[in-house]
Amino acid sequence: MTFFNWPPSLHWIKNYDRTWLRGDVSAGLTVGIMLIPQGMAYALLAGLPPIYGLYAATLPLIIYALLGTSRQLAVGPVAMDSLLTATAVGAIAATGTDEYLALAALLALMVGVFQLLAGLVRLGFLVDLLSRPIISGFTSAAALIIGLSQLQHLFGVDLGRSSFVHEILVAAWMKMGQINLPTLLLGLGGIGVVLLVKRAKTAIPGPLVVVVVGILAVWLGGLSEMGVKIVADIPAGLPSVGLPEISVANLQLLLPSALTIALIGFMEGISIAKAVNANHKAYTVVPNQELVAVGAANISAALVQGFPVAGGFSRTAVNDQTGANTGLASIISASLIVVTLLFLTPLFYFLPKAVLASIIMVAVFKLIDWREARRLWAFDRSDFWMLAVTFIATLGLGIQLGIAAGVALSVAVHVYRSMRPHLAVLGRIKGTNSFRNLARFPEAEEPKGMLVIRFDGPLYFANITYFQAWIDDLIAEREDRIHTVLINAEGIARIDSSAAYGLEQFIRTQRGRGLTVRFAGLIGPARDTLKRAGLMELIGADNFFLDVPKAVVSEQCFSAKPGNRVPALQTNE
Amino acid sequence: MTFFNWPPSLHWIKNYDRTWLRGDVSAGLTVGIMLIPQGMAYALLAGLPPIYGLYAATLPLIIYALLGTSRQLAVGPVAMDSLLTATAVGAIAATGTDEYLALAALLALMVGVFQLLAGLVRLGFLVDLLSRPIISGFTSAAALIIGLSQLQHLFGVDLGRSSFVHEILVAAWMKMGQINLPTLLLGLGGIGVVLLVKRAKTAIPGPLVVVVVGILAVWLGGLSEMGVKIVADIPAGLPSVGLPEISVANLQLLLPSALTIALIGFMEGISIAKAVNANHKAYTVVPNQELVAVGAANISAALVQGFPVAGGFSRTAVNDQTGANTGLASIISASLIVVTLLFLTPLFYFLPKAVLASIIMVAVFKLIDWREARRLWAFDRSDFWMLAVTFIATLGLGIQLGIAAGVALSVAVHVYRSMRPHLAVLGRIKGTNSFRNLARFPEAEEPKGMLVIRFDGPLYFANITYFQAWIDDLIAEREDRIHTVLINAEGIARIDSSAAYGLEQFIRTQRGRGLTVRFAGLIGPARDTLKRAGLMELIGADNFFLDVPKAVVSEQCFSAKPGNRVPALQTNE
Repeated sequence: MTFFNWPPSLHWIKNYDRTWLRGDVSAGLTVGIMLIPQGMAYALLAGLPPIYGLYAATLPLIIYALLGTSRQLAVGPVAMDSLLTATAVGAIAATGTDEYLALAALLALMVGVFQLLAGLVRLGFLVDLLSRPIISGFTSAAALIIGLSQLQHLFGVDLGRSSFVHEILVAAWMKMGQINLPTLLLGLGGIGVVLLVKRAKTAIPGPLVVVVVGILAVWLGGLSEMGVKIVADIPAGLPSVGLPEISVANLQLLLPSALTIALIGFMEGISIAKAVNANHKAYTVVPNQELVAVGAANISAALVQGFPVAGGFSRTAVNDQTGANTGLASIISASLIVVTLLFLTPLFYFLPKAVLASIIMVAVFKLIDWREARRLWAFDRSDFWMLAVTFIATLGLGIQLGIAAGVALSVAVHVYRSMRPHLAVLGRIKGTNSFRNLARFPEAEEPKGMLVIRFDGPLYFANITYFQAWIDDLIAEREDRIHTVLINAEGIARIDSSAAYGLEQFIRTQRGRGLTVRFAGLIGPARDTLKRAGLMELIGADNFFLDVPKAVVSEQCFSAKPGNRVPALQTNE
Repeated sequence: MTFFNWPPSLHWIKNYDRTWLRGDVSAGLTVGIMLIPQGMAYALLAGLPPIYGLYAATLPLIIYALLGTSRQLAVGPVAMDSLLTATAVGAIAATGTDEYLALAALLALMVGVFQLLAGLVRLGFLVDLLSRPIISGFTSAAALIIGLSQLQHLFGVDLGRSSFVHEILVAAWMKMGQINLPTLLLGLGGIGVVLLVKRAKTAIPGPLVVVVVGILAVWLGGLSEMGVKIVADIPAGLPSVGLPEISVANLQLLLPSALTIALIGFMEGISIAKAVNANHKAYTVVPNQELVAVGAANISAALVQGFPVAGGFSRTAVNDQTGANTGLASIISASLIVVTLLFLTPLFYFLPKAVLASIIMVAVFKLIDWREARRLWAFDRSDFWMLAVTFIATLGLGIQLGIAAGVALSVAVHVYRSMRPHLAVLGRIKGTNSFRNLARFPEAEEPKGMLVIRFDGPLYFANITYFQAWIDDLIAEREDRIHTVLINAEGIARIDSSAAYGLEQFIRTQRGRGLTVRFAGLIGPARDTLKRAGLMELIGADNFFLDVPKAVVSEQCFSAKPGNRVPALQTNE
């Protein structure tokens, strides 16, 4: 991305093809209509009045459309960020207070600044640390927590503010007697309607249907007098624009949550953006530019008194399926929300909160990913446990510690594996020049007088001891039967300074035992280290070979033809 | 290590050769004589009365001799553990109190239990995470801190209790006027004598000479009336034996320090034991058994009212050089200390603390490792920075956070490198069947219609995105000129489930573009993953080859001979 084709939207704005318009308008309107109930529902989830969900669905969409590299990603309020906002801000301020509103906007500002900075210093690669099992375990647990957190709206009772599943369930059990029946029926009905409309595959989004039906039911049935909680008065007009109040104390308190939301929000957006990108060749999603774009979107969310936003799964999928060709679709969605804010807010007076809860519950429960867990159980047991630990840690320790535990565990497992890489003693397969792992090809034969081994991983400080001990054991087993140790180094991607030092000791020890150490297929970066460490001279140029067959042949003929050596070894520094 | 040859000492006890005795006695006595001043000095460093250093030099030596796998390792009080003890216990209790003594013993107990458990569950490999640059930077910084902490004894003034270099230096500067001149002269003289005796390479250890000279100078010169602080009354006799008082509160307070000392003490011992092991073929140092042995030694140190012990660098070197053949040498050293405790303690009445300080300073300043820093600067800049960061972090954040920062940094760098492994586009070197990195062998030629690439590292969740993006870029550069992507997988040691999923997407994408994806040299573990993920069928058995030349030949002849395939692919599950 050079300066001259920045921002990325320039490309589609300059080259806008009029045939794109139809798809952009259709997708923009559909997503905009989805955004009205979803935005309000997620604001409720975040602990804010529903109208703030519409605020967050205005400017950020336009900013992302201009700065983002994806042309289908639909940015706006999403479930995960909203729950994390509720947890973070709820720990500091009481729901419904002005302070709560200001803190939610401040959180969006912090998330945006972190994402923007991370994009500028190119930290986008960090999201690669979130492996699929971690994301799956975390998402399933978070979905469960989010879904259950809506029980209070479904029941029409106050269940307190907890993001621990067992606490929510206990509270729900205790208040079973206070359930407001009309509320419960509305909520369950809502869930049923959303699912039915979805199954019918109509063009109208289920959430919109249930919102309309819910409003009519409350209005015509007088349900609000029967204890059904409604959205009630919504201020008309656009949000006032300005920076939220900033204090050092609040910055400190919100810091860990802001970092988590910055990472998780980005992760959600980049995964769906890449998945959709696979069907579109006109552009490429660039992770660091995405960080900048979604960061700017979050900063703009703070300016319009919103809360953290991200690229969402469901709306992006709909945006793509209904034909979005460019960011214009998102701009149209935002415009629809602006129109709603200006003229349509009185329509939502009778909207029952239970209906918003039903929309959230349907949206998140389908994120619980049993399939991936079953697949991993059959296919990769260690990854299954990674998923399970992340799932349980997220439920038991909370969302932030859960994802941290998942990342820490997967990095630890990766490091442990690289400390104990795969090893093989090689033998020649009869009648061929192929040397393969004796453990897998028992018919292969070890060449006479030689131990041929393969070490499948970089040789570095944390495995050099293991490497030495392993070969020492193999040599001990072959006592006096061998004169040469041949290391197939094709799998040794690099050697660090600690390993070079250990290798030097190793070679001297083997020399002391009268053994020659030879290398086959050493690649460039590993050769460079040996050269810098002065090990090339110690090992001797005669002991480097292009591949195992050449080294074995040379050894067995007792004539090392120069043509078998690594070509031009000395001339390619 | 089976049950029947446990403990390891059984081997040398059963097979004791009388010719070994001479060396064992000579080494045992020499190390025992060294232990008297060193033990007292390190007790002082740990904030304990000097006699406790002798206590810690009794039972632990015998226990280690019986349980340890090294026959030369000299266990006992060491500088690093003593400083960490002072920092840990000094934060809870005042020096000189009974509580301080009990806490030091409790700390040894905790260290011992952690080491013992770690050995039993085979956590010895964790020490491999400490790379050479980390150990070097940490040791240099700790040596500087320890050396400067002795300034107060050298000056004869109270400089407070700090393990931060700048605080010690500021305090020393402020109290410059209160320096006790006879103390300073004794201390500087002590340093001079130790260095001179060392240079003269006599058989008598320098510390012993300086102790004798110091005692005589104070006694005959009446220096204690001139303000020179002396060791004074030492209780005669052996320590009483018993468990230290244990309270949950103290266990919690000492926990982080105990973990650090357990790790660092083990690290120091195992490094020197392995270095010495290189000259002795009769035995092998077994890390997990070493953990058990040094853990038991620490538990026994707690029983005799000592403080944490470890295998020390200098005494082990002397033990080896003066001829120790078996653990009997250590048992003789311990016996000498017992004799000293029983009969010789009155001799140390006039021993000046400044002399003990001079012994510590000479011992630790030589651990400051400028050579390694210079070597790494020339040879591996990234490892140099690792050393520098650990050095600075240890000075600036303290010993515990310093080593933690070093380990975290080196693991992070390793993970980052594995996220961005070495990559190469391969070409055939004219007239040969060798395929090498085009960037290093520019004369090599890409085979017509094919992109041949090599990925040098495991393919896992954190680099699969990078892998895909890199190959996509290469394909884009070669647009329409290629029909096949051949992946030389010799360097791909394993593939995890996230990577398998990414690979599936990748192969489908390339198929969509009309490209065939082929693999050469895929090793067993990686093949297993592809098989379990059902990718073998997707890729097609025809697209696996033993090596790159065979794959290229097969492609170019448009006839894939079965003999070139991976042999017996289906039969070797």
